[in-house]
Amino acid sequence: MTTLYNDPAEFAEDQLAGFADLYADRLRTVPGGVVGHRGPDPIVAVVVGGGSGHYPAFAGLVGPGFASGAVVGNIFTSPSAAQVYSVAKAADQGRGVILTFGNYAGDVMNFGIAADRLRREGIDTRIVLVTDDVASSTIEDQRRGIAGDFAVFKALGAAAATGADIDDVERIGRAANAATRTFGVAFSGCTMPGAHEPLFTIPDRHMGVGLGIHGEPGIHDAPVVPARDLARLLVDGILAERPDGDGDRVGVIVNGLGTSKYEELFLLWNEVRPLLDAAGLTAVDVEVGELVTSLDMGGCSLTLMWLDDELEAMWRADAYTPGYRKQAGALAQLRPATFGAASAEDAAAPEPSAAGSALAALVAGGLHTLQRTLREHEAELGRIDAVAGDGDHGRGMVKGADAAITAIDALVDAGPGWTLRAAGRAWAAAAGGTSGVLWGAGLEAAGDALTDTRDEYAPDAIVEAVAAFADAILDLGRAEPGDKTLVDALVPFRDVLTAQIATGRSARAAWQEAARAATAAAAETAALRPRKGRARPLAEKSVGTPDAGATSFALIVEALGDLAAPPR
Amino acid sequence: MTTLYNDPAEFAEDQLAGFADLYADRLRTVPGGVVGHRGPDPIVAVVVGGGSGHYPAFAGLVGPGFASGAVVGNIFTSPSAAQVYSVAKAADQGRGVILTFGNYAGDVMNFGIAADRLRREGIDTRIVLVTDDVASSTIEDQRRGIAGDFAVFKALGAAAATGADIDDVERIGRAANAATRTFGVAFSGCTMPGAHEPLFTIPDRHMGVGLGIHGEPGIHDAPVVPARDLARLLVDGILAERPDGDGDRVGVIVNGLGTSKYEELFLLWNEVRPLLDAAGLTAVDVEVGELVTSLDMGGCSLTLMWLDDELEAMWRADAYTPGYRKQAGALAQLRPATFGAASAEDAAAPEPSAAGSALAALVAGGLHTLQRTLREHEAELGRIDAVAGDGDHGRGMVKGADAAITAIDALVDAGPGWTLRAAGRAWAAAAGGTSGVLWGAGLEAAGDALTDTRDEYAPDAIVEAVAAFADAILDLGRAEPGDKTLVDALVPFRDVLTAQIATGRSARAAWQEAARAATAAAAETAALRPRKGRARPLAEKSVGTPDAGATSFALIVEALGDLAAPPR
Repeated sequence: MTTLYNDPAEFAEDQLAGFADLYADRLRTVPGGVVGHRGPDPIVAVVVGGGSGHYPAFAGLVGPGFASGAVVGNIFTSPSAAQVYSVAKAADQGRGVILTFGNYAGDVMNFGIAADRLRREGIDTRIVLVTDDVASSTIEDQRRGIAGDFAVFKALGAAAATGADIDDVERIGRAANAATRTFGVAFSGCTMPGAHEPLFTIPDRHMGVGLGIHGEPGIHDAPVVPARDLARLLVDGILAERPDGDGDRVGVIVNGLGTSKYEELFLLWNEVRPLLDAAGLTAVDVEVGELVTSLDMGGCSLTLMWLDDELEAMWRADAYTPGYRKQAGALAQLRPATFGAASAEDAAAPEPSAAGSALAALVAGGLHTLQRTLREHEAELGRIDAVAGDGDHGRGMVKGADAAITAIDALVDAGPGWTLRAAGRAWAAAAGGTSGVLWGAGLEAAGDALTDTRDEYAPDAIVEAVAAFADAILDLGRAEPGDKTLVDALVPFRDVLTAQIATGRSARAAWQEAARAATAAAAETAALRPRKGRARPLAEKSVGTPDAGATSFALIVEALGDLAAPPR
Repeated sequence: MTTLYNDPAEFAEDQLAGFADLYADRLRTVPGGVVGHRGPDPIVAVVVGGGSGHYPAFAGLVGPGFASGAVVGNIFTSPSAAQVYSVAKAADQGRGVILTFGNYAGDVMNFGIAADRLRREGIDTRIVLVTDDVASSTIEDQRRGIAGDFAVFKALGAAAATGADIDDVERIGRAANAATRTFGVAFSGCTMPGAHEPLFTIPDRHMGVGLGIHGEPGIHDAPVVPARDLARLLVDGILAERPDGDGDRVGVIVNGLGTSKYEELFLLWNEVRPLLDAAGLTAVDVEVGELVTSLDMGGCSLTLMWLDDELEAMWRADAYTPGYRKQAGALAQLRPATFGAASAEDAAAPEPSAAGSALAALVAGGLHTLQRTLREHEAELGRIDAVAGDGDHGRGMVKGADAAITAIDALVDAGPGWTLRAAGRAWAAAAGGTSGVLWGAGLEAAGDALTDTRDEYAPDAIVEAVAAFADAILDLGRAEPGDKTLVDALVPFRDVLTAQIATGRSARAAWQEAARAATAAAAETAALRPRKGRARPLAEKSVGTPDAGATSFALIVEALGDLAAPPR
């Protein structure tokens, strides 16, 4: 929904007035659009343009290293020839003008008329059309221009900034367009200022494949798919249309249309990257964000520009515009931070004692049991958590346990302390969320307590390890019994275990007794009202259901009770 | 709608993985978030954070001149104390750590726990809370942190980048928060990954006044208002809570929550600026864009940070992060473009001949008649245009005519050519759209044809002027008779006028005859199907209604027929 306007009919002019006021230190308005302030040496003027509603395209791309001027039409409407002429005339620095825009009938006509008029006045004027949308036609030069506008405009702007003459700038722009392919999907239509309905709608949980950027729906509808499947659809769609004689380096744009937000686009990139790797393509200076939008439309597209050395230099070059800024120099002096945790992981494990090796085997076995237990109960834990939370407890715990097992299975002849520390670090890094951090910290603390080189591990060692586990969790989480958290099962478990060992019972018997206490305590959390964390508004809903963290803890310690006791 | 994800429960981690991959040249992940690469000299580490879903807050603000690290929680969820500790530990460069975040209970708790742990390890750790949301509480230090996060974080990051010690950085951060006020409105709720309904809804055409950025609705609902009224609401809301002892310079943020797009925000700024001017406030380095978002929420906020010299230096300082980049040096060598049109406007009018002065008075009278005619028919022209267009023809023509009258009323003793040229330039600049550009160019061309200094203006002069007007429009617009445009009335008018004058009829009689022909021709356009411009999909709908541009032309020339003929 476009909501901010006065008279809807004046939306384009009103927004341009605000934009021009904001950036009055670097550009000025002229009839028909904006022209950037000039550098010390005259360059070929690259004039971009089209309708409004695509910000940062087109006015937001005026600045050093990019466009010299932008023609600003009404929303989704070609600017007039007179507007194009006016902007180009003002942008010309005596070295000629490149008019560049997406391939739409209205733009082709109006920019063409303006080019004729400019040429009649002796201004060398060239046209570089953008035709990147593989979904719009099987014939290359009949394709629409969509997010590839950005790639082609940038190549032109960078070429002009080098001081190249108009023949070279034009040649590079045409090469950029020939090397650029885009494919996208729409999730929802945009709404024009003053309108109460979007320009198009897509059936619920569907997407329009082959989007347009002027409120056109896609070429056909299909059900929405997970991001990893969408990534494959987009990559496959582009690779099927890869340009002739291409290399293996590509500039990449993951573009959001307006309402598909940054985090979603980062997530999509995380799925696109391995597919490009698998295709043997090296991604260069990937741009993920909103570069060619369509008001508040939902959707995204993937653009690849195949790079030769010349295009790569243009793609990587600095630029500084209201809507896009890149200054490699700002990063030149930076070096990766190094810190303790990394070096701890890199150090070699100390050789364990014989008792240590034996206990390490038990610990590893216990962690495998833990993993199996969590996998068996993943769905159940998710259901419990979903009653008054986000339902991710089972998934998070399984992720943590899986990562811990991967880490310890890679160890060679490590002691029990080293094994638990490796497991804890991997768990915390992979599981995320509060429970992941707490379990990771707890396992690491237990490892610290056990050490690797004792001659023997008395039953007390298990108490030390569990106490360290509990202390770490209590210290970090700051929850107390009664808060309806993991702590409600953890504290009785620790206390019963400690008391039982103190009476001289075997580790196995003591553990089993403690596990029963934990299970009972976990069940009793059903009566509690949560007092901590994000569950606030859901606190009432939670009453009657046990805490998921206490439940998973109890399940784990019950399962571990069947293991052999540690060697005496 | 959040659409791009795999497992919704892993959204935060998956997006962070993509983000970290993209920016691996300048930051690295650590458990709990990201840490920026370091510069050559150690600085105080500014660690920002909170839940995910606010990009570029928080991870997108890590980089030179801004944050040293960001803690990344789940969506809208405080990161754990262990996450905060982990990121802060990795970000510390030996000069201490500032933890800074919005004032929410979960964040206060977890960052506080982490601060205790860091201090126990000997790391000097300070906390700077952000409390900018004037709508959330009457008590300053109980307010929430919303878009003001950006202003306070930036002040802290800029202070750290100067090499200041931790006392100074903390002091500047606290001063920034004390000087910062935000007020905003929500238009629509955001949808969590995996959910099919937004977290909250607002009644149709209403807004939530006093928005939150975690899916909370506003403090109360009110009907949506035009942008100029919203600007007043926001400015008044902030000024009512202006800090004590403030100055008259303010850093400004017009922030979009996710779905209120750039053009809308520019338009809103265009309404905010005069209100700040009227309040005696000077806006410094205004930032308009998406800086603290809430997934795909619709809404916006205004933030003012009152600046003393120290805060102004921090606010203006360079920064270079994934989500925010400012490099004043990139603009240093730029100079405003100058071009012909500007100097033509600045030149003094030549003194007209006596005949020129007399004709100029007639021309000015004619332009006033034209303005009156258009104002009378504005609504009617809008209705005609709306049948198959965007309905702005009447408004656009009135805007052009109003601007033309303003321009010529300011002239002193100008000739008819000068008067028409001034009118045409003003018209084209103000009216926008195709008809505005064409009318402007036509009037300018007519002025060129008339000149100012003839001893007498024969009836032929009117033919010359009209021919020049028509040629300019035909040349620029490239429309032909039958295309259903202004040209369908213009060409018969010119032809009849030329023929009538050639037969020796008076200018007035010839004009009236030609006007009748134009009116008839305009009416006949009702039968036509438009062949040009954006009306393509609406072409059929247009049949049966005359062209608005032809109609307005006919109305104007009919009205002008009642004027006295030019002097012979």
